[in-house]
Amino acid sequence: MISYEEALGEVLDNPLELGVEKVSLLESHGRVLAEDILADRDFPPFNRSTKDGIALDFSSYEQGRRDFKITGVLAAGMPQQTLNDKEECLEIMTGAVLPAKADTIVMYEETEIENGIAKILSQPKKGQNIHQKAADIQAGEILLKKGKTISTSAIGVMASVGKSYVLVKRLPKIAVISTGNELVEISETPLAHQIRKSNVISLSAALKSKDIEHQLLHLPDDKLAITKEIKQILAEFDVLMLSGGVSKGKFDYLPEVFEELGIEKVFHKVSQRPGKPFLFGRNSEKTKVVFSFPGNPVSTYANYHVYFLPWLNRSLGIPLPSEKVVVTEEVVPHEFLTLFLQVKISWNENQLQATLVKGNGSGDLVSLALADGFIKVPKGTTTFEPGSQFEYIPAK
Amino acid sequence: MISYEEALGEVLDNPLELGVEKVSLLESHGRVLAEDILADRDFPPFNRSTKDGIALDFSSYEQGRRDFKITGVLAAGMPQQTLNDKEECLEIMTGAVLPAKADTIVMYEETEIENGIAKILSQPKKGQNIHQKAADIQAGEILLKKGKTISTSAIGVMASVGKSYVLVKRLPKIAVISTGNELVEISETPLAHQIRKSNVISLSAALKSKDIEHQLLHLPDDKLAITKEIKQILAEFDVLMLSGGVSKGKFDYLPEVFEELGIEKVFHKVSQRPGKPFLFGRNSEKTKVVFSFPGNPVSTYANYHVYFLPWLNRSLGIPLPSEKVVVTEEVVPHEFLTLFLQVKISWNENQLQATLVKGNGSGDLVSLALADGFIKVPKGTTTFEPGSQFEYIPAK
Repeated sequence: MISYEEALGEVLDNPLELGVEKVSLLESHGRVLAEDILADRDFPPFNRSTKDGIALDFSSYEQGRRDFKITGVLAAGMPQQTLNDKEECLEIMTGAVLPAKADTIVMYEETEIENGIAKILSQPKKGQNIHQKAADIQAGEILLKKGKTISTSAIGVMASVGKSYVLVKRLPKIAVISTGNELVEISETPLAHQIRKSNVISLSAALKSKDIEHQLLHLPDDKLAITKEIKQILAEFDVLMLSGGVSKGKFDYLPEVFEELGIEKVFHKVSQRPGKPFLFGRNSEKTKVVFSFPGNPVSTYANYHVYFLPWLNRSLGIPLPSEKVVVTEEVVPHEFLTLFLQVKISWNENQLQATLVKGNGSGDLVSLALADGFIKVPKGTTTFEPGSQFEYIPAK
Repeated sequence: MISYEEALGEVLDNPLELGVEKVSLLESHGRVLAEDILADRDFPPFNRSTKDGIALDFSSYEQGRRDFKITGVLAAGMPQQTLNDKEECLEIMTGAVLPAKADTIVMYEETEIENGIAKILSQPKKGQNIHQKAADIQAGEILLKKGKTISTSAIGVMASVGKSYVLVKRLPKIAVISTGNELVEISETPLAHQIRKSNVISLSAALKSKDIEHQLLHLPDDKLAITKEIKQILAEFDVLMLSGGVSKGKFDYLPEVFEELGIEKVFHKVSQRPGKPFLFGRNSEKTKVVFSFPGNPVSTYANYHVYFLPWLNRSLGIPLPSEKVVVTEEVVPHEFLTLFLQVKISWNENQLQATLVKGNGSGDLVSLALADGFIKVPKGTTTFEPGSQFEYIPAK
């Protein structure tokens, strides 16, 4: 049985090459840029007023003039005008183009306007209140680099440079597969020995929150049927994500089926709790990967966050996040197993603080309802004091 | 001009009563529960095996028996069976129902099976490897409380108890409105004095990431047309979110139009940078609110996060998050204005650490492309040392 560290290393050594696709800008939030985004023009594209006020020629002020006759009003969206006379000024609104032959803007609050004459009350500086053409960036320069995860502000930036469609890394297409004859649909009333599907529903919600295309499928506990279906699923999807069917039980055919269908077992079982009987595999062409999680709800949920999300980040070229939390109480490690303990999170001063959610083993619904994520507790024999720091794996 | 603290107080004092709606479970991620979720049955619903192994009557082991004849195999999904003879055992898989008259499960790894006889090699304890009926929760108990934000694990929990549809707080319906004749669509090539819409595109992406229904609208710089359109928009939407048109310019008709249409100005202008000329209003029935943001990209984006998101949380009954970061460099406050400075964030040890993004005033595209969020810098005259702690407002 391999350690958690070895298992994660293997998973990260098997990313998929997913390629790229074009998506509409408004659909691109959270996706990974697959092209550099360049400024298509200077920004600002013109000398732009940053205040509402009057535009004038500073040399005239320098020569002692304080009263300027107003000869027009410039709004944002108007083509550039010209200040024809140094003794005159033009009213100008925020966002408007600085007129030719003007070089300074005085805001309304620093003027007194009467009978079409603006009197300057302040001591302006040459060039003030103007956002100079190309001050932010010049046409052709890179605004956003390939590989960046697209934020909502990045979407605004791309809108500015006219990217209606944007090239992003493709996301994997995933089959989310439940196994086990005891499972019934959410809308059904289970018999005494049955339970409703829930693991794959959580997985589906988690994938949906990342806009990952996926399909929910179910396999019965029958080896022939499983073999036939998995074969077809492997042809259609990049990733198989299964819940259940990989422990040592008589009806846990999946490991055999994978082998028969050319899925190489990279590892099966990890010295961790929950989530020990996890099987990770891939085909020899490295075009398909299989995450076969154990069937307990907390096991599946933990392993999705502990293995699948880092794998996804690696496949997309996103650096792996590493959050740390401080615990409020003693944490007892396991001598041989890495533990993933469910925690609730809060901010205390400037620290993210974790409180253990007391579960009742990995079948516990209540802990799933309450937890914000997991802390990773390395194996060992020394109890961690309150205030100890752990790696935090958010799971919302 | 009021302070940021007063402005935020006013905004939070004007939440909307949005009511509730039913959504399908898989659409409920991130929504706020408007009903308590009860266990519809005991969990586990039966004494459930947590291992693959054999089920036996512990009293027989206690009396010295070590070899048990195997009389059947129990899989998950099979109705409950009975162990008919104390000298016998049944093989049992994880998730299966413990047979009547059995009370203990020994995992395969601690047995040796030959010729249909399982020999016990370990020293089992009575009741081991069984997840007792109702150990997690009893039928009728509350699993998830009204008011909780729905996580992906909560979706799994609700699936378990058969909630195909779930009652959640309704989200506001929002009109996202751009103003200004200088704006053209993303797909257009702007003339020298024009720029593409981008603020409302960022807002749209941000609202979309929260599954908030919204529509993008545009108003020209014409008072009559604006009045007519805003009137109609007020009839259809809960929230108006505008970018531009609220500074002191000649063409900034919005404050007047709001007044004419019965939108009371709660405040206009806040002593902050960026985002000073922000107007917040509501109708007298308190059924509509207006967030009228200044037109600069960083101003709009900051105020969305600084005011709108806390307002949304308050309207939905979600506690306001409060994250803290430590800065890596000196931060110079403004004597009279609260500053919202753009930062990049990284984890250093167990602290969230912020590095300032050097912008070039609030028109800066580059800073928008790079920043992860804002820090709030209280007004004052004393420079903050590196290592000082600030409130952090994430904006991704």
